[in-house]
Amino acid sequence: MFNFQYYTPTRIIFGKGTENQAGQLIKEHGGSSVLIHYGGQSALRSGLIDRIKASLDQAGIPHVELGGVVPNPHLSKVREGMALAKENGVDFILAVGGGSVIDSAKAIAYGLADPDHDVWELFQHTRTATACLPLATVLTIAAAGSEMSNSCVITNAETGEKRAYDDDISRPKFSIMNPELTMTLPDYQTESGCTDIMMHTMERYFTQGGNMEITDVIAEGLLRTVMKYAEILHSDPGNYEARAEIMWAGSLAHNGLTGCGNDGGDFATHMLEHEMGGMFDVTHGAGLAAVWPSWARYVMDNDMDRFVRYAVEVMGVERKAGMSDKEVALAGVSAMEDFYHRIGMPVNMKELGIAPTDQQIEEMADSCLRATGGGIGSAKRLTREDMIAIYKMARE
Amino acid sequence: MFNFQYYTPTRIIFGKGTENQAGQLIKEHGGSSVLIHYGGQSALRSGLIDRIKASLDQAGIPHVELGGVVPNPHLSKVREGMALAKENGVDFILAVGGGSVIDSAKAIAYGLADPDHDVWELFQHTRTATACLPLATVLTIAAAGSEMSNSCVITNAETGEKRAYDDDISRPKFSIMNPELTMTLPDYQTESGCTDIMMHTMERYFTQGGNMEITDVIAEGLLRTVMKYAEILHSDPGNYEARAEIMWAGSLAHNGLTGCGNDGGDFATHMLEHEMGGMFDVTHGAGLAAVWPSWARYVMDNDMDRFVRYAVEVMGVERKAGMSDKEVALAGVSAMEDFYHRIGMPVNMKELGIAPTDQQIEEMADSCLRATGGGIGSAKRLTREDMIAIYKMARE
Repeated sequence: MFNFQYYTPTRIIFGKGTENQAGQLIKEHGGSSVLIHYGGQSALRSGLIDRIKASLDQAGIPHVELGGVVPNPHLSKVREGMALAKENGVDFILAVGGGSVIDSAKAIAYGLADPDHDVWELFQHTRTATACLPLATVLTIAAAGSEMSNSCVITNAETGEKRAYDDDISRPKFSIMNPELTMTLPDYQTESGCTDIMMHTMERYFTQGGNMEITDVIAEGLLRTVMKYAEILHSDPGNYEARAEIMWAGSLAHNGLTGCGNDGGDFATHMLEHEMGGMFDVTHGAGLAAVWPSWARYVMDNDMDRFVRYAVEVMGVERKAGMSDKEVALAGVSAMEDFYHRIGMPVNMKELGIAPTDQQIEEMADSCLRATGGGIGSAKRLTREDMIAIYKMARE
Repeated sequence: MFNFQYYTPTRIIFGKGTENQAGQLIKEHGGSSVLIHYGGQSALRSGLIDRIKASLDQAGIPHVELGGVVPNPHLSKVREGMALAKENGVDFILAVGGGSVIDSAKAIAYGLADPDHDVWELFQHTRTATACLPLATVLTIAAAGSEMSNSCVITNAETGEKRAYDDDISRPKFSIMNPELTMTLPDYQTESGCTDIMMHTMERYFTQGGNMEITDVIAEGLLRTVMKYAEILHSDPGNYEARAEIMWAGSLAHNGLTGCGNDGGDFATHMLEHEMGGMFDVTHGAGLAAVWPSWARYVMDNDMDRFVRYAVEVMGVERKAGMSDKEVALAGVSAMEDFYHRIGMPVNMKELGIAPTDQQIEEMADSCLRATGGGIGSAKRLTREDMIAIYKMARE
């Protein structure tokens, strides 16, 4: 067990109709001029943006808006948001969307709070942030956990780099979470979200020591819960209870709770996928599903006790007499693949719909090394050769 | 499932040696003159107070100190702390101790922030707080969860009333949690703490609807974890891992996490025990153990599904063919009593060492009604007659 810090200051307002509290909440948090930041047309068409604007109007708070954030959100949109916010004296940012919109909002908030430096430097890890404008979220996709986390991932389309910057000062002041707002998502997006949610906790579960029992039982319970309700949503997307379970799990999976006492987690699968996302623009959760089974089989010998426990406690593998640890662990990975298939997720790159060349794989490995400053992973520390081997396993 | 809010802004610094960060952390949180508030002599004798003072000195922060907080902390000590803090221009309070010390510190913080009103009015629920001085904690007893919660319980020795006031503005800015600081506790205190920790989650578990699956699996995992490590500590009090599991469970059990989505919880056992604590000055956790089995048997018919689930998922009751729900539920309560006995806890008032008269029981019921503004409980709403019946069951 390692010493740890735990810090989740974001106030969560969870349930039906809560988006109508946006104006009042921003007022309580001192916002006096707001940038409403969102993604595609669905937030407009559904009337959500109008409801939020009405809530801000009622609270007497002026606002401007900027939509058009895409998945794997672009640095160029961040710069556009900064310019618009500056012009209008914005002092509070409200992200209305999923992880991409929230991360774009966080990057704008970093940039506005420190106009003397280029915000991209944070993502290049050449400096750390000293300030961040207050921001809040109205969550419409359960996946990234960005509504409660300190994470922010931005893609520089010019260089093809997808880079993360984590800092507690970007944690949202509040997040409004109405499960109904996720009901119109296409199934592929819903299930990619469930995959991402699970992976945020799995990344913290597979480590070389440091784990606490209470963290493990919370993680295992969370994973079983997400699996149960992901399957329900696959056939019954309008199920409110299932939407709510998944949505709340998404926040808990990535706010730090499921990593307390460990060594910081593995996160190699995430880093490997980030490169795929940077090169091919795949849906993040589906990309994770396409690489995790290969990662798991490649590294499991290095962290066998964890993989056995995972197989039994999360995947429900029954350990029959005579089974070796390796057989139990492999059965756990196979059960995970079966689950991915049941919810319409890929388990390799072919099913994901990408086919990188050998050279592209080497480029991804090189980029991953640059992004992480050398090897990644805790269950097994990955070298360049390890990364290439895992990418190739996932491609075959 | 009900709409809910979740708000846990307290920064947790967990692990060995973390108390030496107190000065620096207070500085970061803007404190410039500190009241160090503590309980008995053990914090002095162990050198803990000296280490904390050295940490404040190093950060250049002046401080005064006030010890002598007793279990079921007294309003008179709160007033003494307010006077001392006022004299010395204190703007930050550091509680070094367990729930009693932290609650005393919270009450001082409320009082100082609003000197025009009597702080006891908050506990009489004749007004709500508008401000609270910033406070932080160095936790030395895992039990009350006050290091992360919005709760505060104070006893007015003049009137014999033990009263609670809950408000988010009293949540500590940070809490330092070093499991080593709990190692010198007498076993009875350790196990009373474990009982209290479990009860904070059990109070949220037994409700009339509104529960979420993810909240339930977290609660059940937490309860099983506390039971496991409570037994380990009963025979091996110096076990760091066990101390750490219990300490972190204590915060999670009462910071709101295990109640998300439910109706606010039952809390009748706590309210019934508060009256016992007000009249007899018993150790809080032991008092809970002495009344819970009677409460459970009295109310279970009203909330049978929960009691059956609790028996199976938490207490590990094996449901044999032909067993009725009631038999399973009763087996769960018996298993809980067995656990209490294994860790040296009482299961009734006789074992607790108190013997209230019929008249005293009626007085406790009347006081409980006054404190709660009419009936209490969610699993079953308790009338005055119900309370008297439960007290008498627990006494026999």
